[in-house]
Order: sequence, then C-alpha cells, then structure tokens
Amino acid sequence: MNRRFTNDYSEFAHPEILKAILDAADEQNTGYGLDAHSVNAEKLILDCFGIPDGKVFFLQGGTQTNATVLSYLMRPYEAVLSCGTGHINVHETGAVEGTGHKVFTVSGTDGKVSRGDVENAVAYNRDEHMVKIKAVYISNATETGTVYTAAELAALREACDRHGLYLFMDGARLGPALTSKGNDVTCEMIGRLCDVFYVGGTKNGMLFGEAVVFRDAALAENFRHHIKNRGAMAAKGFVAGLMFERAFSDGLYFEMAKQANRTADYIRRSIAGFAEFQGNSTTNQIFVKLGKKEASELIDEFSCELWSEDENSAVVRIVTSFATKEADCDALIGFFREKEKRQP
Amino acid sequence: MNRRFTNDYSEFAHPEILKAILDAADEQNTGYGLDAHSVNAEKLILDCFGIPDGKVFFLQGGTQTNATVLSYLMRPYEAVLSCGTGHINVHETGAVEGTGHKVFTVSGTDGKVSRGDVENAVAYNRDEHMVKIKAVYISNATETGTVYTAAELAALREACDRHGLYLFMDGARLGPALTSKGNDVTCEMIGRLCDVFYVGGTKNGMLFGEAVVFRDAALAENFRHHIKNRGAMAAKGFVAGLMFERAFSDGLYFEMAKQANRTADYIRRSIAGFAEFQGNSTTNQIFVKLGKKEASELIDEFSCELWSEDENSAVVRIVTSFATKEADCDALIGFFREKEKRQP
Amino acid sequence: MNRRFTNDYSEFAHPEILKAILDAADEQNTGYGLDAHSVNAEKLILDCFGIPDGKVFFLQGGTQTNATVLSYLMRPYEAVLSCGTGHINVHETGAVEGTGHKVFTVSGTDGKVSRGDVENAVAYNRDEHMVKIKAVYISNATETGTVYTAAELAALREACDRHGLYLFMDGARLGPALTSKGNDVTCEMIGRLCDVFYVGGTKNGMLFGEAVVFRDAALAENFRHHIKNRGAMAAKGFVAGLMFERAFSDGLYFEMAKQANRTADYIRRSIAGFAEFQGNSTTNQIFVKLGKKEASELIDEFSCELWSEDENSAVVRIVTSFATKEADCDALIGFFREKEKRQP
Amino acid sequence: MNRRFTNDYSEFAHPEILKAILDAADEQNTGYGLDAHSVNAEKLILDCFGIPDGKVFFLQGGTQTNATVLSYLMRPYEAVLSCGTGHINVHETGAVEGTGHKVFTVSGTDGKVSRGDVENAVAYNRDEHMVKIKAVYISNATETGTVYTAAELAALREACDRHGLYLFMDGARLGPALTSKGNDVTCEMIGRLCDVFYVGGTKNGMLFGEAVVFRDAALAENFRHHIKNRGAMAAKGFVAGLMFERAFSDGLYFEMAKQANRTADYIRRSIAGFAEFQGNSTTNQIFVKLGKKEASELIDEFSCELWSEDENSAVVRIVTSFATKEADCDALIGFFREKEKRQP
Repeated sequence: MNRRFTNDYSEFAHPEILKAILDAADEQNTGYGLDAHSVNAEKLILDCFGIPDGKVFFLQGGTQTNATVLSYLMRPYEAVLSCGTGHINVHETGAVEGTGHKVFTVSGTDGKVSRGDVENAVAYNRDEHMVKIKAVYISNATETGTVYTAAELAALREACDRHGLYLFMDGARLGPALTSKGNDVTCEMIGRLCDVFYVGGTKNGMLFGEAVVFRDAALAENFRHHIKNRGAMAAKGFVAGLMFERAFSDGLYFEMAKQANRTADYIRRSIAGFAEFQGNSTTNQIFVKLGKKEASELIDEFSCELWSEDENSAVVRIVTSFATKEADCDALIGFFREKEKRQP
Repeated sequence: MNRRFTNDYSEFAHPEILKAILDAADEQNTGYGLDAHSVNAEKLILDCFGIPDGKVFFLQGGTQTNATVLSYLMRPYEAVLSCGTGHINVHETGAVEGTGHKVFTVSGTDGKVSRGDVENAVAYNRDEHMVKIKAVYISNATETGTVYTAAELAALREACDRHGLYLFMDGARLGPALTSKGNDVTCEMIGRLCDVFYVGGTKNGMLFGEAVVFRDAALAENFRHHIKNRGAMAAKGFVAGLMFERAFSDGLYFEMAKQANRTADYIRRSIAGFAEFQGNSTTNQIFVKLGKKEASELIDEFSCELWSEDENSAVVRIVTSFATKEADCDALIGFFREKEKRQP
Repeated sequence: MNRRFTNDYSEFAHPEILKAILDAADEQNTGYGLDAHSVNAEKLILDCFGIPDGKVFFLQGGTQTNATVLSYLMRPYEAVLSCGTGHINVHETGAVEGTGHKVFTVSGTDGKVSRGDVENAVAYNRDEHMVKIKAVYISNATETGTVYTAAELAALREACDRHGLYLFMDGARLGPALTSKGNDVTCEMIGRLCDVFYVGGTKNGMLFGEAVVFRDAALAENFRHHIKNRGAMAAKGFVAGLMFERAFSDGLYFEMAKQANRTADYIRRSIAGFAEFQGNSTTNQIFVKLGKKEASELIDEFSCELWSEDENSAVVRIVTSFATKEADCDALIGFFREKEKRQP
Repeated sequence: MNRRFTNDYSEFAHPEILKAILDAADEQNTGYGLDAHSVNAEKLILDCFGIPDGKVFFLQGGTQTNATVLSYLMRPYEAVLSCGTGHINVHETGAVEGTGHKVFTVSGTDGKVSRGDVENAVAYNRDEHMVKIKAVYISNATETGTVYTAAELAALREACDRHGLYLFMDGARLGPALTSKGNDVTCEMIGRLCDVFYVGGTKNGMLFGEAVVFRDAALAENFRHHIKNRGAMAAKGFVAGLMFERAFSDGLYFEMAKQANRTADYIRRSIAGFAEFQGNSTTNQIFVKLGKKEASELIDEFSCELWSEDENSAVVRIVTSFATKEADCDALIGFFREKEKRQP
C-alpha cells in the first residue's frame, strides 16, 4: 500500500516526542498545566519568540484554540475579520459563531488578509447597527499553503494599532510557514507583531496540542478562567507541556516542519513538468489541478483529499508531514510521470 | 519525597497504554475519530455495556464532555438538574452556563440526586417563566466518592421517563465506581438506564480521554457536528481511540480502577482506628477530618488537597490511582499512626 | 420644515391605533400575552393568512424577532442561509451570531434568495466540519424594496422541503410587500409556504410590535419558554395584542401599507423623468442615484438616509409611511424638478 | 366584577402618559433612541438621581434589561451574585444563563443580599476552576416587597469596591421602593452607590419601558452596540423616551408609585386584625397567609396570584398599582372581614 498524503495529522508523533513521554512515565506531576514541564516549555517558547513578558497556554486542538482565544478577546457585539477561506469561516462548523461572534469575511488574496481589507472592514461597520471589528484572524501558513511576508504582517499590525484591534495568528502550521522557502518572517517578528498566536503541535509531530502565546501576559490575566469555562483545560496538562518542552529544547519543532517542507519541495520539483499547480503554496501542502479521472486515481492510490472540482477538472491536495520520507514520495512522483506518458 | 496523593491524574498513563501507542507509532490513521482503532474501541465499549445499538465518541476531558453533551441535549430554555455539589455546578467555571443553560441545583444526599429531587424540580418549574428541566446530571462515582445503587439508578430512570428527561452520567470515575466494594451496579445497567454516559480515561490511566456513550445511536445523529462546533473534535482522534481500544481489550480498564480502589481500601482499613472519615466514599477518594495543624502537615507531606475547612478543623482529600502501589501507602498510613501517638 | 422621508418608523402610530389604546385605558388585562386582545388578534391574523392551526406571538421589534425565532429553530451546529444584503447579516450587530449561529450568506439577486442558492448552500456544507443549513431567512419586502413572486416562494418551499429546512420570512415590511403594485403573493400563500413569518407593526403604523406566526402550532410548542428566555416576553403583552387586533379587524393593517405604497408610487411617477432609480423597489422605499452634492442636499432637506456612495455618486433612500400624505411629497418632488432645471 | 389585584402591570398606562403620546402623535422623530424626547428624559433622570456624568438607555422590559445589562458587564467566565429568590434566578427562564453566565446564588435575608454574602461568595470562588464573581444583582423593592436601607446599600458598595464588582439594581419596582413608608434611601444615594440600575416603567404606569442608568457614561461606551446585539433596541425608541420624559417632568413617576403604596398601606392597615402577613413588605405587594379554601376564594374573586403553598395553608399575593383607587380596595378588605366573621 502506498503511503498516504492525506494530511499532516495521520501519524501519532515523532519518535523523540514519544520517547520523552516514556522517559517521564514514572513521574507524578501537578495538574492543569501548572507542572514543571509546562513551565519550562513556556520559557523555551517565549525565548524562541523573543517575548519574555509573554504567557503561554497549552490547548488540545485548532478549532478549540480559535474559539477559546477569540471569545476571550471579544465582547458580544464584536466580530473577528477573516478571509472567506479562513479555517474559522469554513471548517469549524460555526465554532466561533457558537461563542456568539460574527466572523466578518473579506475575500483576501492567496488566503491572506491585507491592510486594506482591515481598513475597509472597519470603515464599513460604521455604527451600532453593525458589528464592531475587534480582532483580525490570520493563519500562517494559510489554508492554501501560502505564507505572510514580513511586510504584510507589519502592515496588518499598523492597521490593527490604528483601530485598536487584536492581531491573532492561527499557527496550526506555523512550523512549515517559518521554515518554508522564501519565508522572510522570523520568530521574533511573530512575537512582536501578533497579540496572540499559536504554535501548532497537532499538525507538526505531536500527539495533539497547540501552544497559545500572548505577547503580553497582562492581556492573558484571566485566560485560565476562560480556558476552563470553554472546557479546554486538560487535567493532565503536563502531557502537552512535556511535548512542547521536548520540541523546543533542541530545535526539534522546526526540524519536524523542515522535513515536511523538504519532502513537499521534493515532490513539487519532481512533478513540476507534469503537473499544474493551483495557488502559490510554499509549504507542506501541494494543490494540483487534474482531469477528473486522474484526480480520482490520485485520491484512491494516495488517500489524497479532493479540494474542489468543477465540471472538467478537480484540485487535489497532497500533504507531507514530519514523518514523510523522500523515499515515500517516489511512488507519488511516479504517478505523475506515468500520467504524463499516457498523454497523447 | 513521598508519593503524592493529590488526585488520580498526576501520572502520564499506564505502561500498557503507553506501549500500545509506541507499537502503533509507524501507522498512518484516518483523522477525526474515523480510524480503525476508534471503530474497534467503540465496539468493545458497546459490547461491555451491552448496547449494540449505541454510539461512542472520544473527547478529551471531563468539563469539555459535560458541556458538549448537555448543550447537545438541550434547547435554550431548558436546564439540567444537578446536585449542588455536582462538578458542573462547582468546578467547571460555569462551563454549562457558558453554553446557555441553567444548572438547576438540588441539595441531594451523599452527592447523589434522588427520584424525589427530580419530581420536585419538575413540579417547581411550573410555567414558561421558569426553566424547563430536560436533563438530569449525575456522577458515578460522585464528587464525594460515593456510588449509586442499582435501585437508585432505576428510580431515577423511572422519574426521567415520566417527565421526558435525559439521564446523563458523568463517568469521569466510572471505573472506580463499578469496581468498588459493595457496588451492585453492572455495566449492563448503566447501558440500559442512562441515555448518555461517559467512561473516564483521564482519571483512569490514560493520557487523556473520555468515551461518550449514547445508548441509542439515533439520539447521536448530529453529535459529530456538535462536537466540532464545540471545538472538541480531535484531528488525531485515533490517539484516544487506541487508548480505549487497549483498555477495553482485556479488562485493563477495570484492572486500573481496581488498583486505585484496592489501595484506597488499604489506606482506609489501615487508618480506620486513627482517622475520622467524612462522608461515605467507597472509591479511590478518602476524605479525612483533621485538626488544622495536622491537616496542614498532611497536605505538605503528601500533596493532598484541602477539601473544606471551618474554624477548628479541616477536611483533606487523599486520592489513589491506577499507579498507586500498596508500598506507596505505608508512609501515608504511618503519618496517621504517628499523629495518634502524639495525642495526649 | 419639510416632512422627513427618513424611514417608516418616525411617527408614533396611526390615529386609529392610538384611539384603540385610549378606549381600553380603563381595562385590566391578563399579563404576558394571555389577554383577550391578544387571543382575538391571533384569531384575526390566522384567519387572514388562512392557517387555523397556526399560532401567533407578539414581540417588540425586528432584530429581537429574528434572533428569537432563529435561535428557536436551530441547534448549535446549524446555520441560517441569508442574502448577503439580509438585515440579519448587515444591520443587527451580529444578533443572530450572538445566539450562537452562523449566518451563511449567498449573494442572491435583487435582495432575494433563490432555490438555486439554497441547493448550492446545502451541497457546499457537506460534512461535520461545516455548518448544517437548517433555516432559510428571507425578507418580504426585501432590504432593497423588492418583493418575492409567488413562483419564487413556491420554489423556495420546494427546496426547503427537499432538505428539511425551515422557511422563515421577515415581514417587517410585509404590509407594503403584499399591497405593492405587481405583487402576486397572497396572504394565504404566505401562510401555506412559510414555516414561520412575521407581520410587521413597527414599520406599519404601530407604536411597536411584530406578530410572529407559526404555520403549525405544534412547532411552536415551547416558544413561550423561548421568548421569555430571550427577554422578549412583554409583561403588558396586551398592548401589542390590542394594536394588532385593531389593525386586523377591518383591514386597517393593509390600508396603512397601501398609503405608504401609494405615496411612494406617486413620488416614483413624479420624478421618473428626473431621477435615476437604483434597483427594482416596488414598495415604500425609493433608491435614487445622485451626484454627491445633490445627494447631500436631498439628505439635508428631507432627512433621507445615505444608502451607499462611491467616488462620484451616491444612492439616497426615500421612505414613505402610513402617515405620508400626497401633499407632503410635493416638496420632495419639487426638489427633483428643480435639480433638473439646474442641469445645463 | 371585582377589581383585580393580580399585579402592577394589568393596566395600559396612566392617563397623563397616554395624553403625552396623543399630544405627540403628529410628530416625526429620529429613530433608535436618538430623538429629543429620549435626550430630554435622560437629562431629567440624571438630574433626579444626581449623576450628571451618567448615561440613560430605554429598554422594553425587565428580563430583557437584566440579561442585556449583565451580559454587557461580564466576561464569559464571570458570574453574577443573586439572592436565591432573585427574579433572574427564578422567573426569567434562565435568561441570564442564556447569555452564558452563571447566576451564583446566596440565600440572603428578606430577599436581600448582604455585604457578608458578597464577601463569602468571593472567598468561595477561589480559583480558575470556579466562576469569578463580577456583578452583584439586587432588586429594590425586592421580590418580596422589602426595601434596602441606606446602610445596607452602602455596605454592599463597600464590598463591591473591595473586590472590583459591579453593583446592579433591578428597579422594576424602584418607584414603590423609594416612596415606601420607612424608606431612607434617596435617589441621590442610588445614583451614587449603584454602577447600573434601572427605573421601572412597565410596573409603574407606562405602556412598557425600563430606563437603564449608568452612573458613569464611560462604562456605557459600547452599550448601544450591545443593546442592538441583544435585539433590545427599539426603532421607535421615542415612545419610551416620551413616556419617561413625561413621568419625570413633574414628579408623576413618584406620584404613580405613591398611589400604589398608599392603597397597599390602606389594605394592610385595614386587614391587619384579620390577616396573617408573610414577610416584611412595605411596598405595593402584600403577602397573606390563608387556609387553602380561603386562599382559593381570594384568588378567584380578586384574581390574586398563589405565591406558595404547603399542605395546610397558602400564601397569596395582593398587588396594587398606580391605577388602584381606595374605593377599589373596599371589596377586598370586605373579603377579609367576612372571613373573620365566619371563624368560629
């Protein structure tokens, strides 16, 4: 059977992560994220992002994190701006609205929100009969695998400052974003420009877990109350704490992401002559446009996801992960080469 | 340093559970709980509780589970009945109210809701200016370590049937309840009498995880949508699926609980002459009443939790777990014996 | 000073409505909508719409009604489909999202949702990671003054039946819709095709009040609980009851709406040669496109609302009401004639 | 037929209030509470309560007001303290919980919350697993007709200041409270001691309407957004504005309340020898304890409400209003005298 290229959360966890858990198996730890592993992981993450006055919390998954953070930042009449393609708008079954807040969408470009989008949205919502934009939701990497540039982030920060908005970055795939080819955003920039962001573990080699980072601990003052209110406080918070501690202790976090990008780049390079790419992903997601029949075969053979389709063609998503090896990619690359040969 | 008796979620997981994860480390699994481990775990659990037409879902923690299930079962004007001491009423930072529903409290006895409590609450809320009771929340074991009898559960079921209410059992400590001394409730009874219940993993030897069981799959029709809406759907659902598969494949689930009860019983037996117990716990929680000074020492030396206090005395909670060994208990027992000697 | 053409809720109430209140001033009535006036008004309305098995409730305003009805019809993971221009999407400060539900928007045409929009939305939201469409929100007249045809409504009903959706009509301006030129929808059709609709009083001659009508009383079984939960149950429910009783006892309701339409038609007819209309309103709202300077003058002199603007032009809204008299319109008409003369 | 003593919201409105509406019938007013009447009413109310820097908003009813204000003041993990007998806890169908917040109850005395209750509740909710008390809800007059003393209010204010809590007074019956015999609380005290309170119109001579008063306009900065989000913003806000303007222009507001108290006092005085009072009401509600048969007769003949009952006796509530005349009371008084005579 071929290796699956369905997504980046098909495997349990990186061997080093599992080993860390095994090594700690005899410990007894304090509950609810107040243990030594969580404390140390927090320190390592704050150091990495250059924000010693920040605060870190470990939650379990992306939708949970988005809804928990956004409902913490907003009052009932406030809304969050998002790209129409944003995960919170499309793929979270109305979780943010479920906390009582409108997701105010802009069309965006390449899955990204621009400074102009923010300005327009604030101007549009002009009185008390309309929502008040209070937060800007972006994801990096985006849903379509693109990454923000340093200039784009700085411009968003300016717009947020001008209008008193929070800039919140969904970093479910922050690892692949920061280690992607051409990326010019550093960890320090993220720490400086975002009010809140998270460092994804579920899609980057851990059993589960997202590290929510507040740039300024003062903003997070009551966040533990809020986490509990949202049912998102793990009794055994030390499990996530330990995994993040391990991942940030020697660069493993970025190593795992690099492996995902490396194999994705390898695939991209290898099929470039035979495949039509959709969008501008530079991370571990590859979107290829195919005829319906070939799309169907690709999906069957490699468990890929159908991304979209129209009458004549389909876009299929290929995803690599920390666990993908170059050798695993060859069958997939072979598929595209074969396809090419059969063309008249 | 002494072993901690703080709670039953201080340790990572039972070695067999960890081994199962290691053994599966090279697998690729389908996401969101649709994997083979979760499917198999569901089958094992439904078999165990004797409800082949039921349905099982794996969530991450107790508060999350309570809020997710209850908000699924109720319409906005409906309320859940609970003991005043109920976890949802006291220790979840208003999570159920956070989903928009009143927790209607009754005083109860020994941490338990009675048939009469249900009848009275339904009669009291008599018109549209008051909430409509729609669900009855019970926990087994209760917050105070007691367990429901078969007769009590059957009576509650009758009251629920008469008034069209859902009976929901919080089973965060279901293992200790079902394996406790004197318990006369079987798994089959739970499956037959509760509309929804959960089988706790976090407090019984797993890294995390609660298995929510619907007696009738039809009631669960849209529960996956609801889980996602609440941010409670794990991308790597197979992690919990695998742990429950392992725990229910050869009785390990109940073995772990028995170990917790066994050591608690050992402690109870050993200190019976020297300690004043509070309440009627027969499970892995022991509540002892002490002078303030001794309570403080016990807390310091064994990391116990202060449960309550008044001017002259304090109640301290001692908790054992799957990982507690009899030898671990001897220092604790010694504490009580020493205390006795110092008495004039 | 000129008469204002700001909106249709600038005046207190029709003299006959006020007289009815005065005539009843010495009465004592049962509270919470259980009085004889409300009961009689319900009967009159159900007769008018041909649904003897329906049920009527009197609320206070439009946003309140939309949020109360929609949150009654939906479970947390369900969403309501609306035109992007829909009142619930734009002008209610996120009230529907405030009840926890996504407003899923389609672009629509002329402010109207089509059968195809419904089909596409249902198909798009294909799994549990996306919301479940459960209700279709339409307004008649729409935000832009257009009305649904009988064929359009029947087609929507079919789509709703096919997918198990509720069809909910916002009738804040139902009077003007049903009495507008070219309208081919009867009251009986509304009663037959909509699961829930409301008959607007606030924008049609009453002090306040919207009559929510359920086609089938069974669906409304717990609606009184829900109204109270939403803070929408008036202690003096008989005030609205009496106003609707009066309005539906001799055709006054439709007379008031006709007067609004009549004067709007008069204006439209009179300025047709001099004004550029935007959209296809046939009801009591007129949208005219003007140069920026003239738009500004029109707004100043007649308290009209600026609807939208771009660099060179602006759309201004002119609204008539039950209280507008033809003579009141002449100054407004004069404004357009004067404008014309000044053109080179 | 006898006059009803069911409640204080059985009549439409005081003749002077209705006259004010009639006199304004030809006006056109700005919508949404931005009209001249509302502005003037705000000024009159702020003058009356001695808080020139405050801000006033006109809502429609009590439950709506409680839920709207409390959800404005609190974050998701915060709770409001209330007496167990508080209206928000018993008679609002979970409206406050419907906004996502726990109502944390204390038993209180005479329907009143004490400084000690506040201190205990804050101390009890000691960590992030429990709600955070943020607001104290009191009603004056209370549900049982009692009133707060100046000393009690000052003590509550102190406790609130010590713990950063908002003091919110439900003034649905503020008129009767401030004009009751023995009351020592002035309007100025209310304005000074409460962060937010409301001045009830529905239960004091108006068609509907509650005037929400913020002591400090800064706290109300986004309240108009919030009102709209909650569906509580009336398009014809000027109706309530005008009624409050009239009521506060020459003391009519307090005159109406005095009339209710005057007739209640007259009844109390007249039946004192023949009736057993329950509780210590000094306002327009009278609670009398009767045998079951007599209670039933009283309810039948005067449309009184059954307040509570046990096996042998029942408590019946008698309520007077602005519209009750002394002559109306004589039949009721006669009922008690007759009853006395029939005693053996």
